[in-house]
Amino acid sequence: MNINPGKSLYIQEVAPRDGLQIEPRFVPTEQKVALINALSRTGLAKIEVTSFTSPKAIPALADAEAVMKQIERVAGVEYTALVPNVKGCERALQCDVGEINVVMSASQSHNRANLRMSCEQSLAAITELVGVARGRAHVNVSLSTAFGCPFDGVVTDARIFELVARFEQIGIERVALCDTTGVANPAQVNRVFSSARRRWPALTFTAHFHNTRGMGLANAVAALDAGIDRFDAALGGLGGCPFAPGASGNVCTEDLVHMFEAMGCTTGVDLEALLAAARTLPRLVEHDLPGQVLQAGVATRRYPKPEWLEAQAR
Amino acid sequence: MNINPGKSLYIQEVAPRDGLQIEPRFVPTEQKVALINALSRTGLAKIEVTSFTSPKAIPALADAEAVMKQIERVAGVEYTALVPNVKGCERALQCDVGEINVVMSASQSHNRANLRMSCEQSLAAITELVGVARGRAHVNVSLSTAFGCPFDGVVTDARIFELVARFEQIGIERVALCDTTGVANPAQVNRVFSSARRRWPALTFTAHFHNTRGMGLANAVAALDAGIDRFDAALGGLGGCPFAPGASGNVCTEDLVHMFEAMGCTTGVDLEALLAAARTLPRLVEHDLPGQVLQAGVATRRYPKPEWLEAQAR
Repeated sequence: MNINPGKSLYIQEVAPRDGLQIEPRFVPTEQKVALINALSRTGLAKIEVTSFTSPKAIPALADAEAVMKQIERVAGVEYTALVPNVKGCERALQCDVGEINVVMSASQSHNRANLRMSCEQSLAAITELVGVARGRAHVNVSLSTAFGCPFDGVVTDARIFELVARFEQIGIERVALCDTTGVANPAQVNRVFSSARRRWPALTFTAHFHNTRGMGLANAVAALDAGIDRFDAALGGLGGCPFAPGASGNVCTEDLVHMFEAMGCTTGVDLEALLAAARTLPRLVEHDLPGQVLQAGVATRRYPKPEWLEAQAR
Repeated sequence: MNINPGKSLYIQEVAPRDGLQIEPRFVPTEQKVALINALSRTGLAKIEVTSFTSPKAIPALADAEAVMKQIERVAGVEYTALVPNVKGCERALQCDVGEINVVMSASQSHNRANLRMSCEQSLAAITELVGVARGRAHVNVSLSTAFGCPFDGVVTDARIFELVARFEQIGIERVALCDTTGVANPAQVNRVFSSARRRWPALTFTAHFHNTRGMGLANAVAALDAGIDRFDAALGGLGGCPFAPGASGNVCTEDLVHMFEAMGCTTGVDLEALLAAARTLPRLVEHDLPGQVLQAGVATRRYPKPEWLEAQAR
């Protein structure tokens, strides 16, 4: 494997948007703000704060403006928000986002189910958004179902690259390849990201995985090995896909940071502060979360020896 | 990453021993036999059937002889059992095991806590066992806490290699490096297994991981990349370490097979048959299990499109 000790990685927290958006409980604005403020102080590179969509479409994030305006801005942290259209983009820009995150799917059926548009219509909408945001915020495209679609099945590498080429033509500089329903495998991830980086060295790629089938961290290692240094993840492993019931959530931020730091990489994230934030989550969403490090403790954790063994040693 | 499509892998099932041994419920002999018979027909390379220890030490496996004698032997499957001493070895050999599995820890405190011996005493005991088993069964050493100890902390690569060198001198041909409490990380795993294979090309190494901190499959990929082709795993993710409470179990066999097959490797295992066997486990152990593929379905699973989208397409 091709992993440089000391390599700097950028951990991008998506729980406040990608995680909370499908939670049935509306997390009160002040609790969202407190969570994001805690996250801001952990050393994360970027936080996806909210979504400027219609409150009818995503009631859980109906307080987008309030959250964006009430959070503390910590130097060195980029604040991003999802926007679905020009109206959402203007709302986000008025709230002083550093980046707007636009979403489309690599597969037609998922794009239609999620956005009620064809992929071509989404590309046209993104082109328009790039024009609106130019000079005011960065634009990131999150390409959903990049590694497979719950409706259409296989998504070929050629399809991903066709869309990345279109994004580059449009003037997009940041692309996240998202494994929306946790179907990617490490061989595929390594191959796709290696090719993508070779073909578009000027683009900034993010790897976005879900742990639906247990492969989240394995895919992160495969992306790291392909030279990727930006990773989306959700505190506690929050998140999921409404179109794939039973599927568990995003790669868990604290588990990802724990692994990368153990591997000798530098995330800049204070793991203890992150774990403290993760500990507050179950109260907010009123259910348990799949994060493993919070349950088991860090790998360097030491357990007391059995009493009889201690006695023997004395 | 260095992963050859089509590479043949050997999946070694440890749930009947490593998994069941810490379960509080005694699984009746006939249920154990039925489980092992089902596993035998899935295409697994090896099954760790039981442990020939004192029934007082491991009451859950007090029926070792009965299980070994009642199971069907399927051609191509190797049946192995844990033995702690010469007496256990003789019992196992009388039951016609293909391999005896002996255990010691890389760290002194864990070895003392688990086996009530020093590491030197364990090496002497293993030497004796090799003499007893010679010409009658293969001998595998499972080296516990190879990547870190819950009591002593760090285990250096040098310590692992010192012990592997001793095993080779004794005449051992098979060595499993075991991450007993799930503290290994993929960089460490890749480095250790790469070195071990280079230094002892004639030894057969197995990678044995736990998913305690979510890194189980990531570590498996790191070992695969280092050229390892034998993997221990437990159906459903059963197992754990009695000295590390809160820690979840072994890497889940069906999740591992699902990932490797998706990566283009050949495990020889019928995933559907394995999932069917995993589905029976919660009833046997009377609790849920952490396996993810059983919950989410395989990656190629297709979901129905939303009704309105289907209607639109018509």
